[in-house]
Amino acid sequence: MLITSLENDKIKKCLKLRDKKYRDLYNEFLVEGEHLVIEAYRSGLLEEILILEDEVTILDAPITYVSNDIIKALSTLETPSHIFGLCKKKEENNDLGKRILMLDRVQDPGNIGTIIRSSKAFGIDTLVLGEGCCDLYNEKVIRSTQGNGFHMNIVTGNLMEIIKDLKDKEIPILGTNVEYGEDIRNLTSRDKECFCLVMGNEGRGVSKEILDICDKFIYIEMDSHVESLNVGVATSILLYELNRK
Amino acid sequence: MLITSLENDKIKKCLKLRDKKYRDLYNEFLVEGEHLVIEAYRSGLLEEILILEDEVTILDAPITYVSNDIIKALSTLETPSHIFGLCKKKEENNDLGKRILMLDRVQDPGNIGTIIRSSKAFGIDTLVLGEGCCDLYNEKVIRSTQGNGFHMNIVTGNLMEIIKDLKDKEIPILGTNVEYGEDIRNLTSRDKECFCLVMGNEGRGVSKEILDICDKFIYIEMDSHVESLNVGVATSILLYELNRK
Repeated sequence: MLITSLENDKIKKCLKLRDKKYRDLYNEFLVEGEHLVIEAYRSGLLEEILILEDEVTILDAPITYVSNDIIKALSTLETPSHIFGLCKKKEENNDLGKRILMLDRVQDPGNIGTIIRSSKAFGIDTLVLGEGCCDLYNEKVIRSTQGNGFHMNIVTGNLMEIIKDLKDKEIPILGTNVEYGEDIRNLTSRDKECFCLVMGNEGRGVSKEILDICDKFIYIEMDSHVESLNVGVATSILLYELNRK
Repeated sequence: MLITSLENDKIKKCLKLRDKKYRDLYNEFLVEGEHLVIEAYRSGLLEEILILEDEVTILDAPITYVSNDIIKALSTLETPSHIFGLCKKKEENNDLGKRILMLDRVQDPGNIGTIIRSSKAFGIDTLVLGEGCCDLYNEKVIRSTQGNGFHMNIVTGNLMEIIKDLKDKEIPILGTNVEYGEDIRNLTSRDKECFCLVMGNEGRGVSKEILDICDKFIYIEMDSHVESLNVGVATSILLYELNRK
């Protein structure tokens, strides 16, 4: 099938998927470019390929051919890709494992993307995104993760409720605090086996109600006159240390 | 003095400073917002304040009052600040010290900014930006550093020439390589006292001619199936380890 009209229902839906509201409604999202389409395919999330007429793909998925005008309309890049993937959202696994990272109102898509890549790199079982975090299926987040997020368990929800469940399972909640925290280098192997690390908003940090119920605080040793590290960097260094044998 | 016309020479110059070409020509740059103006003042880089008429500042610098229309024209933010600082570029100190970070064609302003913050946090003496790196005085870099870059030595130049000088001074050049590099955790105190770490472009890494003359390669241990960390994160973890006593 070749689609040439922007009024086509499928194309209209694909364009709507730029908004979180419609991604939530349809439980779908759109990815652009061969690398991301392949990653979505490998993760079993790819439902359909939209590809420029006359182009080919070796992926085993339903294919819709589209005109150059449609490609341009769908693209969010300066140089549009010739292939898009219509994908279903990944199912959330409620078994969070024992090495959990939780983000409280982290809003920058680049930071979320960086943190997903580092979570994969340093053996995190589940990433929990609280209300107020940037949407996982935001196009910039997906681009910045290069598809890594498709391969790990990421759940969304109310952080206070999830923390309550974790406490019932005796998983320690870790916050960060430079003044009365413990140097991350002094954590024991036992500390590193089982934890839920909470990291917070770029400007405001972790919300008070969560800090109040943390079981332990840690910090990264550094020159004292620097205000703070980028949240993606701070999280990554903590995960790197928590993965240190 | 109150300026209300966009045709005013000073305002025209300030607007031009958005382009690297003019920043290089005038050896000046513009910062927006109270925090950055104060940081520029503290670093001795602030030449003049431009402020919305009727607003006040306690900083001891020449002041020019401007109309709201001028503020809107100068601003690059959704919500314009009421204060701008016209600054001279920081002088480059050719004594690079013994703990040097060198960036080869790192192009994303956010990554440069993140790396500057981490360099300050982990005791780097000098950051060297090679040709092809994003400009230090790019507005996004300055915003992302929150003014930290004003307080550290940052030099620009031809990396091959600078490396030749460093080799004459017997400073080891460190590259990264997962296949035949050494785990960063195994470096000695001596390794950490004196080095020039080279990090490369987001997609292409460090250029071959530089890799060919590196004295040692290091890597970060992580789950093997992840393609790579964000360059800002990778650099920050290496600097964190190189700062470990």
